[in-house]
Amino acid sequence: MSVVSMQRTIFDDSEYERRLERTKERLREAELDALVVADPANMNYLTGYDGWSFYVHQAVVVSLERDELVWVGRGMDANGARATTWLDEESIRAYDDDYVHSPYDRHPMDYLSAVLEDLDVDDGDIGLEMDAYYFTAKSYTRLQKNLPEADFEDATLLVNWLRIKKSEQELDYMREAARISEEAMLAGLDAIEEGVPEYEAAAAIYDGLIRGTDDFGGDYPSIVPLMPSGDHTGTPHLTWTDREFEDGDPVIIELSGCRHRYHSPLARTTFVGDPPDEIQRTADVVVEGLEAALDAVEPGVTCESVEKVWRDTIAQYDLEKEDRIAYAMGLGYPPDWGEHTASMRPGDKTVLEKDMTFHMIPGLWFDDFGVELSETFRVTSNGAEVLADFPRRLFTS
Amino acid sequence: MSVVSMQRTIFDDSEYERRLERTKERLREAELDALVVADPANMNYLTGYDGWSFYVHQAVVVSLERDELVWVGRGMDANGARATTWLDEESIRAYDDDYVHSPYDRHPMDYLSAVLEDLDVDDGDIGLEMDAYYFTAKSYTRLQKNLPEADFEDATLLVNWLRIKKSEQELDYMREAARISEEAMLAGLDAIEEGVPEYEAAAAIYDGLIRGTDDFGGDYPSIVPLMPSGDHTGTPHLTWTDREFEDGDPVIIELSGCRHRYHSPLARTTFVGDPPDEIQRTADVVVEGLEAALDAVEPGVTCESVEKVWRDTIAQYDLEKEDRIAYAMGLGYPPDWGEHTASMRPGDKTVLEKDMTFHMIPGLWFDDFGVELSETFRVTSNGAEVLADFPRRLFTS
Repeated sequence: MSVVSMQRTIFDDSEYERRLERTKERLREAELDALVVADPANMNYLTGYDGWSFYVHQAVVVSLERDELVWVGRGMDANGARATTWLDEESIRAYDDDYVHSPYDRHPMDYLSAVLEDLDVDDGDIGLEMDAYYFTAKSYTRLQKNLPEADFEDATLLVNWLRIKKSEQELDYMREAARISEEAMLAGLDAIEEGVPEYEAAAAIYDGLIRGTDDFGGDYPSIVPLMPSGDHTGTPHLTWTDREFEDGDPVIIELSGCRHRYHSPLARTTFVGDPPDEIQRTADVVVEGLEAALDAVEPGVTCESVEKVWRDTIAQYDLEKEDRIAYAMGLGYPPDWGEHTASMRPGDKTVLEKDMTFHMIPGLWFDDFGVELSETFRVTSNGAEVLADFPRRLFTS
Repeated sequence: MSVVSMQRTIFDDSEYERRLERTKERLREAELDALVVADPANMNYLTGYDGWSFYVHQAVVVSLERDELVWVGRGMDANGARATTWLDEESIRAYDDDYVHSPYDRHPMDYLSAVLEDLDVDDGDIGLEMDAYYFTAKSYTRLQKNLPEADFEDATLLVNWLRIKKSEQELDYMREAARISEEAMLAGLDAIEEGVPEYEAAAAIYDGLIRGTDDFGGDYPSIVPLMPSGDHTGTPHLTWTDREFEDGDPVIIELSGCRHRYHSPLARTTFVGDPPDEIQRTADVVVEGLEAALDAVEPGVTCESVEKVWRDTIAQYDLEKEDRIAYAMGLGYPPDWGEHTASMRPGDKTVLEKDMTFHMIPGLWFDDFGVELSETFRVTSNGAEVLADFPRRLFTS
């Protein structure tokens, strides 16, 4: 197979080199010799690797002593690594299918252990993403058993924290994702009406998400479109059913366009029929609070201080909300587009810097309905750039 | 909120009771007092819980001493548990948002530890799904630290092995999923032609998957539609791009309809333009091998013996394939619809029993193209019931 013709990394090599250099700086600060990266988003960030193969164990190894990273994965995915990463052939190491859901007491971490030995870091200080998706308890105990001389340290968010500030190219992909989010939101709002089953609205949203814009298509989002409706606006993570929308249903749509794995989530609320004053007033409060919080964004302020602006705004209406209102996000794979670093909530003293990106999604829930509106934004040199251009109001269907 | 009106379990309570009883039998055999179930598919199997909330830590606890299971999850998902499970209020335990991606050194497993103490199993033998998706290394080390008196055992596939044989109701959902797979495959084959971007074919497939049939809609599948094309048929897990299909491209479509989280995967290969004899001959061999292997299916034979029939069939053409050709599947959440138990490959001596279900996906890959055709089937009392009704041949686009 002609591997060169397949190559399709979406950033210049220099961007990957910068990411690797910054990762190595963090390793030196943490006094680590190597890092095993298992989070698919972090693997992509460092190498470009992009495939739906995270249902088997795989990882990227960063060694301070080596100029290139090493990709470790399943044999049938090695060509995918050749096609999507900036790595040379010797940096792509693949295990055979006997290791996959094996009846032979073989585990992919046995193969990874041998790679760590080959890289001569098996008696060193090795960082592990202990709480990353897909890095299982078994992965850890196998590494411990195989490499008794290694000293393992928890380095869960080491790479994630590097991701919080975006490059120009990353921001361009997020802006493209925002165009897709606008299309999908329009399609969803158009589709929802009395008597239409929820799955038809989901299909319309998917069409917008994947067909994208006239200029480019959409990637699969890390979270499926969520459309809690009626009583279910109080169950934010249930997915669509065969139920038909009914007159009197509030419906929250939360979705995200995706472009080269970069997201720009967007949420709006619509109402089937004539909205009662109570819901209209709630929507007005959410919009006021969201806009006040967005206005508070600028470099130098803390995450918790932005949340406080929201909290103070809704407190004027004797309302409060317990959950965080925003979180850092961008690049992602299922099950999440969040980066798991900064959140806007009491106690989070992360100081905002230019080019950090967040999804701000405040909402208010009551016994029988909820209202959410959200925006994805970038911190600019003196404020916030909201990525999507979509009216902020309660819609009606 | 009226929780009773929201309830929507998709099986009778008696089916959940049977599943729980069989799980308890296995616990007794394994001399365990309790089991912590973190795999979302196993959580659904035992309780009905169905939400896109597996991006935060959650679990179900089975205790031998207790009639009901306990669901443990995030506060904002407790209503989802009330709506989708057969559990009583006292069996739904939720942690607050301070535990989510917490800057306060709180971890959801701290809350789970307290639940295990409350259930009085914290000094007992506790099974953990050590290699399950979403049960991270950190989850394990936190439980170890919090519960020094507990004796933890690896019980990774304990529930998965119970899932391999399906009930009548489960089979009905899989048959409905097969109807959806047929619709989506037709839509994909229709959409692919020279000059069409890959994402448009993906959008057409999604429309089939979610819009479903005239009678019911589709759920989101656990794996996105895969469409490796051209050179990329050798990179089975790369997803669609903006590239346009070209004359001379082989395209493999692998997809699955999904109904109430039950799948029925289906793969076919098409060719853009006039297929060369070589590809046509390869497709004929794959069909012959697939059909020979399906004919070999019946209760009492082993998984490896079915694979051998495929292997012997293609060997007549001096061909061989290293990977497994089939795996047990059904209920699933991203990133996989496979059950991780039996596979049809050398060394797997699992004996087939009536109502086991598998996805058989043999394929042949060469330097510049690959061909795959697959079927999902149930083991009957004397053979195989293929769930989808779709022609087995090379298509042209």
